Amino acid sequence: MDPVIPDELFHPKSVAVIGASRKPEKVGHGVFANLVRTGFPGEIYGVNPGGGEVLGRPVFSSIEEIPGKVDLGVFVVPPPAILDGIPRLAEKGMKAAVVISAGFKETGREGARLERALLETSRRAKVRILGPNCLGLINTNARLNASFAAGTPPVGSISFFSQSGALCTAILDWAIGENVGFSKFISLGNKADLSESDVMESLSNDPETRVILGYVESIDDGIRFLRVSREVTARKPVIIVKAGYTAAGARAASSHTGSLAGSDRAYAAAFRQGGILRAETVQDLFDLALGFAMQPMPRGERLLILTNAGGPGILAADTAEKLGIPLAEISPELRGRLSGKLPPTASLGNPVDIIGDAQADRYLEALSAIREDPAIDAVLVLLTPQAMTQPEGTAQAAVQALADSGKTAFASFLGEASVREARKILSAGGIPQYPVPERAVRALHAMLRYRRIQGGVPQDAPDLAGIRRGEARKAIDAALAGGKKTLGEEESRAILEAYGFRFPRHALAQTSQEAVRAFEEMRRPVVLKIVSPDILHKTDVGGVRVGLSSPESVAQAFVEITSSARRMVPSAWIAGVSIQEMVTGGRELILGMSRDPQFGPLLMFGLGGINVEVLKDVSFRVAPVSRRDAVEMIREIRAYPLLSSFRGSAPSDEGGIVDGLLRISRLSLDFPEIQELDLNPVMVMPKGSGIRAIDCRMTIAEAKT
Amino acid sequence: MDPVIPDELFHPKSVAVIGASRKPEKVGHGVFANLVRTGFPGEIYGVNPGGGEVLGRPVFSSIEEIPGKVDLGVFVVPPPAILDGIPRLAEKGMKAAVVISAGFKETGREGARLERALLETSRRAKVRILGPNCLGLINTNARLNASFAAGTPPVGSISFFSQSGALCTAILDWAIGENVGFSKFISLGNKADLSESDVMESLSNDPETRVILGYVESIDDGIRFLRVSREVTARKPVIIVKAGYTAAGARAASSHTGSLAGSDRAYAAAFRQGGILRAETVQDLFDLALGFAMQPMPRGERLLILTNAGGPGILAADTAEKLGIPLAEISPELRGRLSGKLPPTASLGNPVDIIGDAQADRYLEALSAIREDPAIDAVLVLLTPQAMTQPEGTAQAAVQALADSGKTAFASFLGEASVREARKILSAGGIPQYPVPERAVRALHAMLRYRRIQGGVPQDAPDLAGIRRGEARKAIDAALAGGKKTLGEEESRAILEAYGFRFPRHALAQTSQEAVRAFEEMRRPVVLKIVSPDILHKTDVGGVRVGLSSPESVAQAFVEITSSARRMVPSAWIAGVSIQEMVTGGRELILGMSRDPQFGPLLMFGLGGINVEVLKDVSFRVAPVSRRDAVEMIREIRAYPLLSSFRGSAPSDEGGIVDGLLRISRLSLDFPEIQELDLNPVMVMPKGSGIRAIDCRMTIAEAKT
Repeated sequence: MDPVIPDELFHPKSVAVIGASRKPEKVGHGVFANLVRTGFPGEIYGVNPGGGEVLGRPVFSSIEEIPGKVDLGVFVVPPPAILDGIPRLAEKGMKAAVVISAGFKETGREGARLERALLETSRRAKVRILGPNCLGLINTNARLNASFAAGTPPVGSISFFSQSGALCTAILDWAIGENVGFSKFISLGNKADLSESDVMESLSNDPETRVILGYVESIDDGIRFLRVSREVTARKPVIIVKAGYTAAGARAASSHTGSLAGSDRAYAAAFRQGGILRAETVQDLFDLALGFAMQPMPRGERLLILTNAGGPGILAADTAEKLGIPLAEISPELRGRLSGKLPPTASLGNPVDIIGDAQADRYLEALSAIREDPAIDAVLVLLTPQAMTQPEGTAQAAVQALADSGKTAFASFLGEASVREARKILSAGGIPQYPVPERAVRALHAMLRYRRIQGGVPQDAPDLAGIRRGEARKAIDAALAGGKKTLGEEESRAILEAYGFRFPRHALAQTSQEAVRAFEEMRRPVVLKIVSPDILHKTDVGGVRVGLSSPESVAQAFVEITSSARRMVPSAWIAGVSIQEMVTGGRELILGMSRDPQFGPLLMFGLGGINVEVLKDVSFRVAPVSRRDAVEMIREIRAYPLLSSFRGSAPSDEGGIVDGLLRISRLSLDFPEIQELDLNPVMVMPKGSGIRAIDCRMTIAEAKT
Repeated sequence: MDPVIPDELFHPKSVAVIGASRKPEKVGHGVFANLVRTGFPGEIYGVNPGGGEVLGRPVFSSIEEIPGKVDLGVFVVPPPAILDGIPRLAEKGMKAAVVISAGFKETGREGARLERALLETSRRAKVRILGPNCLGLINTNARLNASFAAGTPPVGSISFFSQSGALCTAILDWAIGENVGFSKFISLGNKADLSESDVMESLSNDPETRVILGYVESIDDGIRFLRVSREVTARKPVIIVKAGYTAAGARAASSHTGSLAGSDRAYAAAFRQGGILRAETVQDLFDLALGFAMQPMPRGERLLILTNAGGPGILAADTAEKLGIPLAEISPELRGRLSGKLPPTASLGNPVDIIGDAQADRYLEALSAIREDPAIDAVLVLLTPQAMTQPEGTAQAAVQALADSGKTAFASFLGEASVREARKILSAGGIPQYPVPERAVRALHAMLRYRRIQGGVPQDAPDLAGIRRGEARKAIDAALAGGKKTLGEEESRAILEAYGFRFPRHALAQTSQEAVRAFEEMRRPVVLKIVSPDILHKTDVGGVRVGLSSPESVAQAFVEITSSARRMVPSAWIAGVSIQEMVTGGRELILGMSRDPQFGPLLMFGLGGINVEVLKDVSFRVAPVSRRDAVEMIREIRAYPLLSSFRGSAPSDEGGIVDGLLRISRLSLDFPEIQELDLNPVMVMPKGSGIRAIDCRMTIAEAKT
């Protein structure tokens, strides 16, 4: 299969700027000037009805006049001229276009129509579109700046895509000011054609990109995004800041699962399942990127902190402890080598404190010993500018000692005025440096998180026995045909049983005699519940009796339940009374699913009762969940210890819960008609005895095709 | 009462430097040079046995040669010379001394002896000591730089104290590099005499200080610190970064409370009760400080965000929502005024997006309208550098429109190269600015938190009826006399009953007949429990039976309990069996106390069962707790909703819990002998019915005097 993004987008041999302008204040001038000034080595063709020259280069008055082949078109003209120009440039060989112009979907209905037309036109012409309404595209490796940004960043190995053009300009400005190297800068604009998923896929195959960064406000095709993320993060780190994450908005939801699943829950689950590192702020995004861009991946987790002052060392150690990063043990060999070189007042713990009068030579000697120690994986060099301190010399010492050491190195030189030059030396020498130690430790933490992701999350295809899809199909079709939206316990149970869920033995009784007859066949005690499509909250109408052990109590409960329901909901049609064996010796769970508009089925897991309703102690994953996802879902809730042996109780059957989650995942994918699903409660029995669904509800709707 | 810190420390008229040196590499030279170069307007006397001149000023060969009065002494000589010099300078009128020299407690036992001698000497001489082993002291308002720092920061209204001298140098370097103004810089060193509490108290009375910052590793007198914090934060904001906070270490503890109360729990509780804002990192410390230093306190909480790009606006709004800061509603009047001045594509929600081509004039017009709106309390101005953007002009517009507007203003100009000058304009104009919007919003959040603290936390003195201190005194003395460390239920109950705790009716039975006789007097059902000082975990030895309602079952349970306990702990001395009315209809709580080495009694509150043991859902406060503290303790646990009406149950008696916490607070302060205390479980009854202690334990020890 061809890659989605043609090579001509990032590595064109020739570029045409439609709308190249002589007037410096025009965007069409800025784009043309960027291409020329960055020294793009291929052909640059300007097109403008007026013809003439721009920046001393001839400009063609029509597309047809362009003398050669065009790989990439950049459009800075009004929408109609773009729709007109795309097929004509396609005739010249154009495979990709950057549409910078605004005036599309973001302006309202007419713009949205134009955007659809843009997409249709480009599809017919077999041209892929970046934008519209974007800043453009930069590939420093190809000396290609097809944007109206105010400059070009240095060459580097970070690539960045952004749904906000303005954030692109801010980050470009920062990169130029701080001399941070980038490979590709991609402003996604309205994402009419190419999306973040396409860009991530392309960058994962790009040898010039080591780390992929993104700024995302929304994702349209969440399911594809999750699939692509899994593939990409198996090869390269992806760090994304997601904006708009608390603006979940009120979603109408009738299930527990739906009401607990804000839209950020789905993003958080998908990012996690996709192996994406989520940055909390834009600052965080670049803090984390620097480690990946400049340093080798850590071979292990053990960190050594070297400092010339106690305080910053403690702050770094605090952060490491909080993030679960182990501080390396100082081996007797290392201690011996260090003590021979350091003054007696130095502290040979970790942090290693070579004290306030340390000059560059002492740092160099300490680092030379540290670099030889195979039990250290990462090194953080701290410096506070004191009377005798040599910031530049120390920076050089750090670069010298740690380059090619195989260790993952970071630095934090505190202060400002007297460490400015030293910071430049560190950056130029490939050591990422941060103004405070905490940020350096967080960057290491991101690399350690990625270490566990790297190589990919195993996507075991769960093997689920005893699924009778046809049966479920029939039940759902029948409900849909009857115009039902909300399925009661009986109908939901039929569907769930077809997917292998076990319910306690049960029967439907229409008279008290029938109830007693059913009771005689059952293990005691039993539960009686009203069955009516018009009554959803059964306890509220006196419709439930538990712990019944004699025929007399069953008969009496039948009468009481039905008359109470009739009295309280006179309009209700009562199908009968369900009689069910009572499950004892298990622990209450809730399993559920709600459908996220971006990511599809979002599965929820929690312990029953107050854990869900009051403490909101629940976990989420996007379907399909793997066996590993399901295990993580169970273990990440705070109350997880309750499922293992607690206060002498038998451990619960975790495998049974995993199986249940996998079955809900499959069911949700097989039947897009199911909108929401609550299994509440489900009882998990002791290890080896599986789970028993007690009550369940579903809402369904005709699936959108 | 005299203030602890004499005025001569911060505002001396004359300073003597003992150890003033000619050699530029010596600390004694650096200190003298700083005094001279900063232009200290008072007398500067250098003392050095060699005499001669330093920096063109005469140096005296002995203290006695100093011709005038000395207010402040600065010591940069070895410890013996300091001990010798202090009384001699006191003769010259010295009231305060800065001891920069190291070689004291930090070097070991001999140094600790010298430090004690230093303290004794200075007390005799009535001289207060800053240090030893510190960087020194700076007061920019007095042009006093009595430190060996590499420079002097600009004048400002932030004062900073630090337990790490190196961190002082780093922050000085940053202040000089970033041109951030400071009033006082105080390096605490070993805190032999003056502590963070003394400094905070002094700075709270200092008209030159608007905001107090601190870096703290440990606090010696936690009880005084808490008292001083309450007084100081009622007048000025105090922001502290506490290092070493995860290094709680393993503390031997036999109670639930003790094992859950890591040392950081006590710091967190004390900071909160003292009204101190806790910064998470050093960067955070200064981010938060800038708002207080440069802007008026917000009059309300409503924030308006003004931006020229969507992305950063969303990031700012996200942070505001996460921190609970309300975005201001755009009133019809403001909307009208804005729409008249802005292009039609501008977005008049909040964030107000004046779009990418906004120049300085558009910002000025928008801000001029915003400044007039009384329903806006704080304004955040965002800028991303786009093609038409005028960063410097926009900065000037922001300063012009927001100065003296009564609104609390912040800015975040994203990027680097093209916003550098604009940032300087903002800072010079008194608007704190941050490289990313999230940090600006966090700074506002700190001001809003302080708004609630300002004016002081009411310290209601709880009025507790029915406390019989003498009875408790006798019980504790008896236990101590018997050499007991751990008190069982019977003894603990006596003490707690003397402090007003209600237990269910109970009796001690030594025969089954006695048990049945007691039972006849009681409300059923009852509970039987083994009573033995040698058996702490009663259930483990079959020593508890619940729900007994007949004389036969009581008699049988008596026999079973005692024989089971005898069989399982043959060595135990069995005092009898306790028979107790069973409490029903309540909710299980745990109330406890453990004694923190710094802060004294640390009270704990949690819901019983899994909430404490598995979910660690507990809250802490340092005694004495006020009524308000107790209410906060109860409400901050995650499971708090369970105490209000939940699933139709009656709301619990919150007032009863408050009363219980106040009584434990009082008991812990009255009896320093009580080391740990667990009331577990306590049942809280429905509203108006108080609490019932069911089981309790205590450990005691001779109080340290």
